[in-house]
Amino acid sequence: MTQIPAPLVPSKRLLMGPGPSEVAPSVLRVMSAPTLGHLDPEFLQVMDEISAMLRVVFGTENRLTMPMSGTGSAGMETLFVNLLQAGSRALIGVNGVFGTRMAEVAKRCGAEVVTVNADWGTAFSPSDFAAAAEGQSFDVLALVHAETSTGVAQDLDGFRGVADACGALLLVDCVTSLGGMPVELDRYGVDAAYSGTQKCLSCPPGLAPVSFSARAEAVMAARKTPSQSWYLDLGLIAKYWGGERAYHHTAPINQLYGLHEALRLALEEGLEARYARHTRNGKTLASGLEALGLSLWVQPDDRLAQLTSVRLPEGFDDARGRRYLLDEFGIEVGGGLGPMAGKVWRIGLMGYGSTLPNIELCLTAIRAALNEQGIAPPALVADASS
Amino acid sequence: MTQIPAPLVPSKRLLMGPGPSEVAPSVLRVMSAPTLGHLDPEFLQVMDEISAMLRVVFGTENRLTMPMSGTGSAGMETLFVNLLQAGSRALIGVNGVFGTRMAEVAKRCGAEVVTVNADWGTAFSPSDFAAAAEGQSFDVLALVHAETSTGVAQDLDGFRGVADACGALLLVDCVTSLGGMPVELDRYGVDAAYSGTQKCLSCPPGLAPVSFSARAEAVMAARKTPSQSWYLDLGLIAKYWGGERAYHHTAPINQLYGLHEALRLALEEGLEARYARHTRNGKTLASGLEALGLSLWVQPDDRLAQLTSVRLPEGFDDARGRRYLLDEFGIEVGGGLGPMAGKVWRIGLMGYGSTLPNIELCLTAIRAALNEQGIAPPALVADASS
Repeated sequence: MTQIPAPLVPSKRLLMGPGPSEVAPSVLRVMSAPTLGHLDPEFLQVMDEISAMLRVVFGTENRLTMPMSGTGSAGMETLFVNLLQAGSRALIGVNGVFGTRMAEVAKRCGAEVVTVNADWGTAFSPSDFAAAAEGQSFDVLALVHAETSTGVAQDLDGFRGVADACGALLLVDCVTSLGGMPVELDRYGVDAAYSGTQKCLSCPPGLAPVSFSARAEAVMAARKTPSQSWYLDLGLIAKYWGGERAYHHTAPINQLYGLHEALRLALEEGLEARYARHTRNGKTLASGLEALGLSLWVQPDDRLAQLTSVRLPEGFDDARGRRYLLDEFGIEVGGGLGPMAGKVWRIGLMGYGSTLPNIELCLTAIRAALNEQGIAPPALVADASS
Repeated sequence: MTQIPAPLVPSKRLLMGPGPSEVAPSVLRVMSAPTLGHLDPEFLQVMDEISAMLRVVFGTENRLTMPMSGTGSAGMETLFVNLLQAGSRALIGVNGVFGTRMAEVAKRCGAEVVTVNADWGTAFSPSDFAAAAEGQSFDVLALVHAETSTGVAQDLDGFRGVADACGALLLVDCVTSLGGMPVELDRYGVDAAYSGTQKCLSCPPGLAPVSFSARAEAVMAARKTPSQSWYLDLGLIAKYWGGERAYHHTAPINQLYGLHEALRLALEEGLEARYARHTRNGKTLASGLEALGLSLWVQPDDRLAQLTSVRLPEGFDDARGRRYLLDEFGIEVGGGLGPMAGKVWRIGLMGYGSTLPNIELCLTAIRAALNEQGIAPPALVADASS
């Protein structure tokens, strides 16, 4: 290389896409605190506090609850490499990118995968899974609680019974739900769940909180072959996060500082208040988008408050519009994925970023982006320029 | 949980163990810069600059050079899950923890593993591998450049020829070498290498720089089955780090800011000057330890400058001594692992932490720790209290 790059001075964006989300100043600040050793007594206390706080937001008493040292997708892989092996059988709900990804990851563990399919943008009912499982047994039944690719909220009620009927552990993707809506693993009888830090926890990406029930632990303990992944092997990692503190890998110390602070902020706000804020703001955004003449991809009962998929009008240039938002307003929203590519924008109101001023600015920016492409939406009720 | 933990105020330690190492203030500072989206045009430039700078410190022109979103052990796993599959054959040098770990990871990929063994604290010669490979063919030949568990520097000269003779790709663990001593992948004909950020690059832990030769890329392209890991699948990840920028997982943005700055600092210092600093300081520490009446585990020709294994005197309580250093001086050093547990301390002089004042303080602290346990070392030449 001919010259050394200049020091980074990243622009301040308003992150209103599907994640990463806005990060609170105190979370960013603590990430630049001095690095402790991964076996320092002070750091071991940080780990214990993180696990305790994660149990609260996961709604669980599960002993084995901690962040994995990778992003949300590493959390997904953690569940499957530890709970499946060659010859296992997995029943997986596919109604978006992340269900699709779960099926792919499970196959790579040597499992036989049966998918339950639904249109992107719709939710499952337990009977969909019961019908697919009819007369068969499975090792795991997996579905997504909050589909980041579509904006669908999945009610978890009733799936424990379906899992029991086919002898399966119940696995749930909580990447976009954790910290933004009630998760309640124990209430719904979930055996294993994973999440990410860069959604409703409002922490930079890089960690994957996971939680495993005693039943899931028993399944792992009974394995005859080790997990195909050494890095994600919970048998080894539990010895570091648990009592023995045996070295496995060097934990991402400063990332964990950030997660500690993000969890603290969530608990200080109060989970009920936090979920109510997300719900209220999601509805305000939905109304505002409809007032612009836009329609939403997901029907009202299945909508996530923290992630809204809005249909782009006929003739609207997706990429040009997102670039306009970024350049003129510093706002990032997400494009569509898979069958929804070019058809929707995904607007996130996650954690620290779920505020009324952000909604108003975003609506103003979208209105301007429509205008910029010659599309004249109805005047906004709250539009100061009207 | 009954109460919310207090905000973190981590103590400032002097990190002189086997890693994490001391981190420069500007690296910590940039980690608290505003989070950009993982597809933001500004962030894509950050990625390009990181890859370009990594090529310089790796000493390679390899296109496929970038950090994986996990710690150094995820880097190790990345090489094996992409280059091995069921039925592959691996020849692996084991003379410490990390060679042992490579063999374990390779087995979990379904490979048949043949190990070349040497005493912990000694280095290999190419003829050791040639003898073990005699008349056989292998898919990969792997060894550790800088054994963090023992403090041994492995000369890489001559291994390319051995790999060629048995038809293998040459794989090298550069976790503790990268940024602290010449790596020169292209010069030594290395096909794949991995490292970590928390050693001589002096960045907090959480990322694993990797690099793959065109030959390694060809082997991956010819695979008949996908990698057993989706998270570490280079075929997918290369599309995000390469030209297409296809979403795979959400990159750990703020960690990557830190790596960008750490690499910048290394290049600003100049690699030759940086390596010379490490060499000089490693010798100073070794002399200082010997002046305390202590002996070193590794013979002079095989010693790493950035990590020194010093034998503990007869009767010295390892854990008590390290706790004393931490409590009284805020200094962290590492204990021994495996057959060296309780017998050595591992003292790191890595990256930003490799300075004369740190050496002097560490020697003073060790002298005090010996005294505290009733062991009276010879007076230090430079001891101000003499």
